[in-house]
Amino acid sequence: MSPDIEILIQKISRLPGLGNRSARRIVIHLIQRKEQILEPLLISMQKIYNKVKTCPNCGNIDTFDEICSICSDNSRRKDLICIVENVTDLWAIERTSCFNGTYHVLKGLLSSINGQGPEFLLLDKLMSRCQLYGVTEVIVALSATVEGQTTDYYIKNFFKDSNIRVSSLAHGIPIGGELDYLDDGTLLTAFSARK
Amino acid sequence: MSPDIEILIQKISRLPGLGNRSARRIVIHLIQRKEQILEPLLISMQKIYNKVKTCPNCGNIDTFDEICSICSDNSRRKDLICIVENVTDLWAIERTSCFNGTYHVLKGLLSSINGQGPEFLLLDKLMSRCQLYGVTEVIVALSATVEGQTTDYYIKNFFKDSNIRVSSLAHGIPIGGELDYLDDGTLLTAFSARK
Repeated sequence: MSPDIEILIQKISRLPGLGNRSARRIVIHLIQRKEQILEPLLISMQKIYNKVKTCPNCGNIDTFDEICSICSDNSRRKDLICIVENVTDLWAIERTSCFNGTYHVLKGLLSSINGQGPEFLLLDKLMSRCQLYGVTEVIVALSATVEGQTTDYYIKNFFKDSNIRVSSLAHGIPIGGELDYLDDGTLLTAFSARK
Repeated sequence: MSPDIEILIQKISRLPGLGNRSARRIVIHLIQRKEQILEPLLISMQKIYNKVKTCPNCGNIDTFDEICSICSDNSRRKDLICIVENVTDLWAIERTSCFNGTYHVLKGLLSSINGQGPEFLLLDKLMSRCQLYGVTEVIVALSATVEGQTTDYYIKNFFKDSNIRVSSLAHGIPIGGELDYLDDGTLLTAFSARK
């Protein structure tokens, strides 16, 4: 095996969810079907590389001209902003089609371990968007981890003196979840948040 | 998500071992780290695309000028040829460093279901290599499947009237394998091939 192929295997093996063995299988697959698979994949990746960028308005990563397709979509409510940790979470919410507002993608959560302070939340940019579009509600859709909840609390506190409603996603039993298998924390939250 | 990104996710999800969800994770990873990960990966793939080809001598797929690095390596025995089904198997044997000859990579195994006849074995090319280099032994290293063993038998038959020794890999208990978990076929073979 030539060093070029070894380098490619190494690069692919570092992608999330892959290891050395699966990377080798993928590379073999690619080089055995150079014209049918490797070439179209290369063209597709090249296109993404040339066109993908971060939306200056919301922080979404996508291919667009000035602002991303969500921000430029006139059928979406500009006065409703959902705060998400990253683009993965944005995609997850978009897949459900339950949200018809716009997003604010954080650069990261508050994390003393990773040295991420409030500047990662880009709250000044969010505030100026709130004033510009007359935002009435901000939905904080962060993970139910320590860092997610700390950030949630910080954001709520930031908007305390404004007249913007700030809400968070509900915590409780996941749909299809069996009580028996739930951890105590979730069960406790579900109890105290009963309605 | 733009159609370009969706197309890339689709293409990646069709690679071996990947699905929709893992492809999405990989694409997110790539576009969030465009400069650090997507760009080097693209360059590496482009290089492979431009340089990789099939060795006219043995059928190995690699990056080389005239013949592959194994065929052009003077420290390797040219009079010993190992027949493998594909490049994956060649790589597997190379990883063990137990073989110091050259290879003959088949285009496929004999398979009536897939309509693959003896022309997939490229035996004429192998025979002329045998005559050219004065090959003394051919090792048939094919999988212990029905198609592998049929091909093994066909190749042995092909060399019947020549003075070239044809051997196959041994079948038996895999190293580290527990008798209790072995299938009957392997156990039976291991018994009858005891030494």
